[in-house]
Amino acid sequence: MPRFSKAVSSLRSSEIRDLMTLASRPDIISFAGGMPGNELFPVEAVEELFRGLDLKKKQAAFQYGPTPGLPSLLESLGGFLEKKGLPVKENRLLITTGSQQGLNLLAKAFIDPGEPVLVENPCFIGALSAFRASEAELRGVAVDRDGISMEALQQELDRKERAKFLYITPYFHNPAGLLYTAERKAQLINALQGQHIPLIEDDAYGDLYFYEEDRPRLKPIKAINPAGINVCYTGSFSKILGPGLRLGWMLAPDEIYQKCELIKQSADACSPSFTQVLADAFIRSGQIYTYIAGVRQEYKRRAEAMVAALREHMPDYVQWNEPRGGFYIWLTLPDEADATRIMMEAVEGGAVFVAGKTFDPEGKRNNSLRLSYCNNSPEQIAEGIPIVAAAIRKFCG
Amino acid sequence: MPRFSKAVSSLRSSEIRDLMTLASRPDIISFAGGMPGNELFPVEAVEELFRGLDLKKKQAAFQYGPTPGLPSLLESLGGFLEKKGLPVKENRLLITTGSQQGLNLLAKAFIDPGEPVLVENPCFIGALSAFRASEAELRGVAVDRDGISMEALQQELDRKERAKFLYITPYFHNPAGLLYTAERKAQLINALQGQHIPLIEDDAYGDLYFYEEDRPRLKPIKAINPAGINVCYTGSFSKILGPGLRLGWMLAPDEIYQKCELIKQSADACSPSFTQVLADAFIRSGQIYTYIAGVRQEYKRRAEAMVAALREHMPDYVQWNEPRGGFYIWLTLPDEADATRIMMEAVEGGAVFVAGKTFDPEGKRNNSLRLSYCNNSPEQIAEGIPIVAAAIRKFCG
Repeated sequence: MPRFSKAVSSLRSSEIRDLMTLASRPDIISFAGGMPGNELFPVEAVEELFRGLDLKKKQAAFQYGPTPGLPSLLESLGGFLEKKGLPVKENRLLITTGSQQGLNLLAKAFIDPGEPVLVENPCFIGALSAFRASEAELRGVAVDRDGISMEALQQELDRKERAKFLYITPYFHNPAGLLYTAERKAQLINALQGQHIPLIEDDAYGDLYFYEEDRPRLKPIKAINPAGINVCYTGSFSKILGPGLRLGWMLAPDEIYQKCELIKQSADACSPSFTQVLADAFIRSGQIYTYIAGVRQEYKRRAEAMVAALREHMPDYVQWNEPRGGFYIWLTLPDEADATRIMMEAVEGGAVFVAGKTFDPEGKRNNSLRLSYCNNSPEQIAEGIPIVAAAIRKFCG
Repeated sequence: MPRFSKAVSSLRSSEIRDLMTLASRPDIISFAGGMPGNELFPVEAVEELFRGLDLKKKQAAFQYGPTPGLPSLLESLGGFLEKKGLPVKENRLLITTGSQQGLNLLAKAFIDPGEPVLVENPCFIGALSAFRASEAELRGVAVDRDGISMEALQQELDRKERAKFLYITPYFHNPAGLLYTAERKAQLINALQGQHIPLIEDDAYGDLYFYEEDRPRLKPIKAINPAGINVCYTGSFSKILGPGLRLGWMLAPDEIYQKCELIKQSADACSPSFTQVLADAFIRSGQIYTYIAGVRQEYKRRAEAMVAALREHMPDYVQWNEPRGGFYIWLTLPDEADATRIMMEAVEGGAVFVAGKTFDPEGKRNNSLRLSYCNNSPEQIAEGIPIVAAAIRKFCG
């Protein structure tokens, strides 16, 4: 029996895998995954864009690229991000192999085994997994409907051992579905200034807003560019082109970027040139903007279908957010509920979701669950939600 | 100033990057990179294969895939590897984001900070970088023309603190160009049996043999399947399709595979589906075999051109291997030579290569250098080698 590292024992043999196996069964309606619907991918557009490239660009798609990313994509993506008001020129942009890699690089850059990091509770599981891989001590900070709880955060900031960073997903939170208010962001900035705790701001879903009026609230903290806070802004092509391309990005101050680039070199040398060439063409053609506008409408339609079904079928004691964008609705059940048992019951009925404790940094709190509407038609949603509701009633009355 | 982890300080700010910048200057003939020639990529074939796929497969190319890899590619690649005699069914196959990621996952699975690993000296720089990222203590073991030195290896095996693994590249070694003899492999197997030291066998170049008669020597140790040794076999599409796809693989015993899969989940969730779909189609069409046969001939032609130029221009005191496959020729200079200074001089003249100390685990020994012939026409080789020879003569007489 080989002697494995201590680091690897900090990773949990994931229930996610079993869940994904369930989720891919054609007889089960899956509200589990955070993947876009296959039918929404811009297959034809991308194929045509590739066909139209000159031979030199096509060859470059097969070749190694520089570790930070293909220069042409860094330029076009930089333009895309500047439209969001992000300070691209004052920072450095790194293409990552999905934003999952971005989180992994940052974890590696900052965390020595046992050191504390602050995360929201609930928190994106990919982040939890990346931070666990660096043997972080995960300190969960509660969220309310406006964002991270300032009281809970202040308690953590007052502790003696300073956290290595704070990780948040303020825009259509995964899994809680919430959108930070402008006020909460201002309070957060205020609390972090002078603390020497870098902020990782994960913005994988911000483009998928349903209401124009929310656009001011979507302005990244990175774009506000507050003095005295090192903000590392991460993003992804996964929700605005396709996760199968495995492309994300990180916009960070030079010093942090330099470390992450070095780590990336040892991790996978460079991100796939092939998909970088495709993403670059997608941006430069302008199709990324029309595509995003289209999926925004479609996800809104799905979200509305799910809200309607929840209103019709859920018992009164179930609470949820009305999504204003993104992929998720977060259901809160009575305190004593066990979402894992409810999930098993739902699977018997033919529907699946993710139990709340998966997103709890301590893996405990389980009176909640995440429903994704991104990958289902309104018809599937109308069929699946009653199954989930029946499973909840069975255990919670 | 952010407080970075100790781990990141073990990574060196790489001279490789500066070298690659030089290597991409159009006025400099580069023998530095280990990248295939752009003109050799099967651009049209792959484009046509993609066009011919059904919509469902094309959509899957945009979607997340399972962490271990797309089932269809695992199957087709399994068949490709079984033709090499590899025990695919008795092991587990993991698709990695380049074989660089495979080495990184194995490092993370086995190494805790400060623990020793055994590597060849000289050694592939990607491996050195992956092992440094896990804060390994690198113990270099000399190679001779037949493979790893058994005497030097035995000395290491006799040391009290057992190494976490041994990493070797037996088939057209990067950078030393050598091909292990069958006898040396047998001795190595004998020495490792019962030692409880896993063997990482990196076979990125084995398909690029120039002589049919060498095929028996190319049989992987993994295929010999020796009792009592955990062999982790890594490989890559980089040299037989294109590095820009960022696809490699690892064939390993179940227990090791399980750890690596968990780590991969936290590293980048999955390898790019898009390029996995392309690689799968390339294998299933059978074109991978005709393509490899073609590039084998082309690299042989380039290697012969380089050997001819070396014979004509190099002073007598320079020694090198005559390549029997792969990408590299390793030049050994007189003991007191400084390959870095020679490289600077060569750059002035218009040619560049990689100085030997880059491949030394301790970064010291520098009376050697690596020439790549993979990315140059015979004409460029004939023009560039005299520049390298002149630089050597200037410092070594």
